[in-house]
Amino acid sequence: MNNIIGNIPTPKFKRIIIIGGGFAGLKLARNLAKTKYQIVLIDKNNFHQFQPLFYQVATAGLEPSAISFPFRRVFQDKKNVHFRIARLQEIDPDKKMIHTNIGNLEYDYLMICTGADTNYFGLKNIEKHALAMKSTGEALTIRNTILENFEKALNTSDKTKAEALLNIVIVGGGPTGVELAGAIAEMKKYVLPKDYPELDFDLMKIYLFEAAPRILAAMSEFSSKKSMDYLQKLNVVVNTHASVKDFDGNTVYLDGKTIPAKTLLWAAGISSWKIPGLPPEIYGHGNRIIVNRFNEVVGLKDIYALGDSAYMEEDAYPKGHPQVAQVALQQASNLEQNLQRIDKNKPPKPFHYKDLGSLATIGRNLAVADLPFIHLKGFIAWVTWLLVHLMSILGVKNRLFIFINWAWNYTTYDQTLRLLLKPKGKKSS
Amino acid sequence: MNNIIGNIPTPKFKRIIIIGGGFAGLKLARNLAKTKYQIVLIDKNNFHQFQPLFYQVATAGLEPSAISFPFRRVFQDKKNVHFRIARLQEIDPDKKMIHTNIGNLEYDYLMICTGADTNYFGLKNIEKHALAMKSTGEALTIRNTILENFEKALNTSDKTKAEALLNIVIVGGGPTGVELAGAIAEMKKYVLPKDYPELDFDLMKIYLFEAAPRILAAMSEFSSKKSMDYLQKLNVVVNTHASVKDFDGNTVYLDGKTIPAKTLLWAAGISSWKIPGLPPEIYGHGNRIIVNRFNEVVGLKDIYALGDSAYMEEDAYPKGHPQVAQVALQQASNLEQNLQRIDKNKPPKPFHYKDLGSLATIGRNLAVADLPFIHLKGFIAWVTWLLVHLMSILGVKNRLFIFINWAWNYTTYDQTLRLLLKPKGKKSS
Repeated sequence: MNNIIGNIPTPKFKRIIIIGGGFAGLKLARNLAKTKYQIVLIDKNNFHQFQPLFYQVATAGLEPSAISFPFRRVFQDKKNVHFRIARLQEIDPDKKMIHTNIGNLEYDYLMICTGADTNYFGLKNIEKHALAMKSTGEALTIRNTILENFEKALNTSDKTKAEALLNIVIVGGGPTGVELAGAIAEMKKYVLPKDYPELDFDLMKIYLFEAAPRILAAMSEFSSKKSMDYLQKLNVVVNTHASVKDFDGNTVYLDGKTIPAKTLLWAAGISSWKIPGLPPEIYGHGNRIIVNRFNEVVGLKDIYALGDSAYMEEDAYPKGHPQVAQVALQQASNLEQNLQRIDKNKPPKPFHYKDLGSLATIGRNLAVADLPFIHLKGFIAWVTWLLVHLMSILGVKNRLFIFINWAWNYTTYDQTLRLLLKPKGKKSS
Repeated sequence: MNNIIGNIPTPKFKRIIIIGGGFAGLKLARNLAKTKYQIVLIDKNNFHQFQPLFYQVATAGLEPSAISFPFRRVFQDKKNVHFRIARLQEIDPDKKMIHTNIGNLEYDYLMICTGADTNYFGLKNIEKHALAMKSTGEALTIRNTILENFEKALNTSDKTKAEALLNIVIVGGGPTGVELAGAIAEMKKYVLPKDYPELDFDLMKIYLFEAAPRILAAMSEFSSKKSMDYLQKLNVVVNTHASVKDFDGNTVYLDGKTIPAKTLLWAAGISSWKIPGLPPEIYGHGNRIIVNRFNEVVGLKDIYALGDSAYMEEDAYPKGHPQVAQVALQQASNLEQNLQRIDKNKPPKPFHYKDLGSLATIGRNLAVADLPFIHLKGFIAWVTWLLVHLMSILGVKNRLFIFINWAWNYTTYDQTLRLLLKPKGKKSS
């Protein structure tokens, strides 16, 4: 076995491999770093991404670095943690081994924290032409695309072409779609007309389409209604019961309706991927891996799945938990404690999700919050949202920079990060 | 003439086209924005780049956004300034027209502020495999390449391969090469061993090669000597009288010597480009456009060149001015005043360069400064460098963020921007 992943030494005790450094994987790795286990964390990036703020990167409110945190920085003084940039290719449960693009490695325990990616529901044209927002890189691409289209709009005298360049269609009325719609509407209101005095902003419309009867369907009726009011206040055209059927890069097709638009932001659903080597029967809806209350993958020994990639039922959640950061973080804590219990020959404790509430922000002073005992709206919900996100972000410096950015944007009404910037040159491709 | 650049209206008075928004072009546009002229500024990026700090982007000390400033932000309330992202393709001096990738446009006055790009002196292999640093994008590529090579070095057991991945060869002992060498040496000293405890840093060497007898040849002997001491203190291998002959992506070839290295940073020279449509006799050494003391291109009517792309002789500078920001800024000021004078039928004033001094920083508390009456070194030169650069950068927010970044890096000995980040997805290519 000479193609071991990047010279990782033989563990003195046991090796735990964690696939993916999202909320679940990173939390698990950080908690387990204090134990005697050897931890091998692999991820395709060298940084953790704070997903809840992707939409602010997409709308030029925050820099990618503010919401990204290098894994090596987190584990600088943890000798038992080994991080590698790698892509999982296959799992061999019999040999207890993973295959990656940089080599193979045996595990004692395997933690699948691979999260979820965009689900296009088989709509090939949309997959080809639409933009999604499941990574910092994709968020940056949205920002670049919007800015490029505005620059192009300056150079056309054709009104329909200009409309298509300026219009933005967002599909999916979950938190991602709602927050994107709000942030883009605020750009249109405060920043863009100042930057582009030569453009006619009456031509620009922001659409939000949701197939379900209401937006923010996972939140309370109260929050749903309020967020709808806020979006309409910001002149977003919101349609529920509306499904986007097709998109060719220039026109968005709905039932009996078309919209000229070059930018379609797809936030309509997520799905996990089927990992080669694992039996098909472990997957549930949306390719989520079915686990028991201890996050063990049903039918496989020493393999666990958690976070967005896992599907667990408990009494209060007969259709599984929502795919949110809180579930991932709580499962990681519970699993780490269970591993310690098993090690001391104590019985593990079943996972129990404690819902701390949900938040969504639409714009300046406009947010909704469903907390355990109260629903909040407006300024107070918005401040709650700010504080919760500021405290959740990793790293004192990131926190500081985000705070200054927000304070800056709030007081000046002006995001300053409107740069069309790409790495350049031979080695970056 | 219906393919006018992006719907720019007919000017009420006269139109000045400025090609390039570097130090010269941006300064000129800002000064002229107050006049009755119509200003059309074109640049291939939508932001101004602060070149003197590229090396800090390359070494993960600063974010690209901190040293970049969107043009539209600068000219938000200037109705007579029109900015377009465009590439110059040809100048037609007879028709007084420029051709670009987005259309043609006539000028009354044309300002060539196209700066300079990397000069590989015809060394094709080096051009193919080396990295240069003449844009924010290229600086980011250097950062990504260095980090990627460190990640790859973890996965090899071959000592020579590891050496080649870790070694960094810098060619050119001007300010760019010296500052890069110093910053990389500090990364090696303070950050990298903490991030990569599994790597053997004795294998990593940083080389700086300069063909001339001394580094920082444009500065005083004193500064030259001191900077040499500082670099050696930081364990950079500095060789003068040393020319790199070839590079195949794995090995650097010098006279009678080879070095295994995958990263060659080329800062050995700059050159301008010959613009199609202009007569060959206007170009001097390094394709600099020969201008008189009024920045008029010799033999062409109403066309001016300034900054790095221009070549002007005056008594104190019989071989032309150094290609530095100060010359560009001063030429822009003089030219703007001359245009106003011409307009009032007053004679224009010849340009006279006032050398305010030169600075170079090597590391923490290590810098050199040649000021008009004094040479400084060490901490005091370093503080001078910090203040001068902080005050030169555009925008209060950029200044604030750079200051916090520097204070952070200085006190924690830890740059935090070690992210391998690239925009992703279909639309970014």
